[in-house]
Amino acid sequence: MAAVKVLTVGAGAVGAYFTGRLAAAGRAEVAVVVRSDYEAVKKRGFEIRSEAGDFRFAPAGVYRSAAEYPEEADYVFLTAKALPELDSAGLIAPAIRSPRTAIVLIQNGIGIEEPVAEAFPRNELLSSIAYIGATRIAPGVVQQKGAHQLTFGRYGGGDSAAGRRLAELFAGVPGVQAGFVSDIACYRWRKLLWNLPFNPVSVLGGGLTTAEMCDGGPVETLCRELMEEVRSVAAACGVELAESLIPENLEFTRNFPPYKTSMLVDYEAGRPLETEAILGNVCRLAELRNVPAPRMQACYALLTALTRKR
Amino acid sequence: MAAVKVLTVGAGAVGAYFTGRLAAAGRAEVAVVVRSDYEAVKKRGFEIRSEAGDFRFAPAGVYRSAAEYPEEADYVFLTAKALPELDSAGLIAPAIRSPRTAIVLIQNGIGIEEPVAEAFPRNELLSSIAYIGATRIAPGVVQQKGAHQLTFGRYGGGDSAAGRRLAELFAGVPGVQAGFVSDIACYRWRKLLWNLPFNPVSVLGGGLTTAEMCDGGPVETLCRELMEEVRSVAAACGVELAESLIPENLEFTRNFPPYKTSMLVDYEAGRPLETEAILGNVCRLAELRNVPAPRMQACYALLTALTRKR
Repeated sequence: MAAVKVLTVGAGAVGAYFTGRLAAAGRAEVAVVVRSDYEAVKKRGFEIRSEAGDFRFAPAGVYRSAAEYPEEADYVFLTAKALPELDSAGLIAPAIRSPRTAIVLIQNGIGIEEPVAEAFPRNELLSSIAYIGATRIAPGVVQQKGAHQLTFGRYGGGDSAAGRRLAELFAGVPGVQAGFVSDIACYRWRKLLWNLPFNPVSVLGGGLTTAEMCDGGPVETLCRELMEEVRSVAAACGVELAESLIPENLEFTRNFPPYKTSMLVDYEAGRPLETEAILGNVCRLAELRNVPAPRMQACYALLTALTRKR
Repeated sequence: MAAVKVLTVGAGAVGAYFTGRLAAAGRAEVAVVVRSDYEAVKKRGFEIRSEAGDFRFAPAGVYRSAAEYPEEADYVFLTAKALPELDSAGLIAPAIRSPRTAIVLIQNGIGIEEPVAEAFPRNELLSSIAYIGATRIAPGVVQQKGAHQLTFGRYGGGDSAAGRRLAELFAGVPGVQAGFVSDIACYRWRKLLWNLPFNPVSVLGGGLTTAEMCDGGPVETLCRELMEEVRSVAAACGVELAESLIPENLEFTRNFPPYKTSMLVDYEAGRPLETEAILGNVCRLAELRNVPAPRMQACYALLTALTRKR
């Protein structure tokens, strides 16, 4: 059997970790498209420091653009941040040369698949949700801590040959818990239940850690109410999130060592925020479906103004 | 007739302007209690640069504390900012030596009179609302621009001999439009209709000017919705604010030259904010009366966290 070919586009910490694990385990030939760290990765590959075991990831090819990739990939991963100024379909387009290439999105938020689904209607599209603490600490150097979970499923739900095959590829790979699910939308909303409150509030509150947001005071109340709004919008979109998820999320966050949300880290570093994927698209869904979401809309307006002012 | 005696406690820009106008017009003997600018005011009095005519205000006495005031005042003005850490009743207490002294509060917000009313149940309490652009630009130097309007009325509503007499004192004084009203609560809520949205949003949005908040986008929507929440809370408290006040306030603000709200100016200068008077007390009234005010509560939680973090 010929090697499975993977191209990882926008290989930041998360993309390099998961597809690097596949490569290191000999499960796939993984090439990468990287921009800012091109020189370092071309020269030395990725060095990945992981609680589940350090490893080196020497990509089968390192490119500046998907157009340079000479093969026909089985899987094209898109693991760049979900930002409006980023044309996700355009980034991968040159590498989508046949309907047999499956596309895998590892991104946060809601409504991030649509542009890709529209651009490549003949390709299988796998949407995935990662729970991982992975940070790029230097060019080509990634630090991973805590969870390393990747859950994927067919965009729109249901079975997927490409999805099942991907689960098989990941099966038994050390340092990765991967799985195929038939209802990925549910997982996406469930992650949003955490991301939507904590990410914006950490920034708007002047740089709050998770502990400072779960202090039993008005900010925690706000986070809880934002979660309730997420539940209502999800329900209007046909995704039922159990009510118990709200206290569970708060409890979990309260008991976890305090940390800065990824949005706060991005904000403090002056990088663009995933405001649209995590907040804006959800606000638009709420409006479209006539679901009251006043706190969410307020945070969206404030966060947009704040980042524009910066 | 003996001269009317006024003591102005916490004589910042607003207090110095209005009571200084009384003194300069020879309508009253005005002494002041000042803290940070004591030396400058003691030496040179106030220099007031005003669009309605510059003037000097040489107080009849300059004190560090109300206890030093040797007289029995007809009016004690309290014109310090409404801050929780400021014991407003305690500040004026030593100068309230008889029931014939009327107390005049010039402060923003809601719920600011209660502590004073409770502390001095036998004294007439006049609550007042100022529309004035007055800034302390140097020790003892005040710059005034734009409006110079002072509206006062009996706390709790109704007629007041002390109030009518104060209106007579101000009558014809250049650079002051002052008037007694029997429903001051209505005026207070009407000013809050502007203050509650624009002050917090200007800070939370990262330093927005009035023009940036009235740009027709989501921030303006948020401000309009916050005004609607204020209207609902006011109505539950027995104060009807006409619905037309909302578009009128937005229109007025949009057409005014852009400026920074007082809360934003205070925030940028690292000074404490009137969060409780303008936002917190209103949120508590909303809860008490079961009026939904989700955006207000969200802004209150965020603003409190933000200023605590600072």
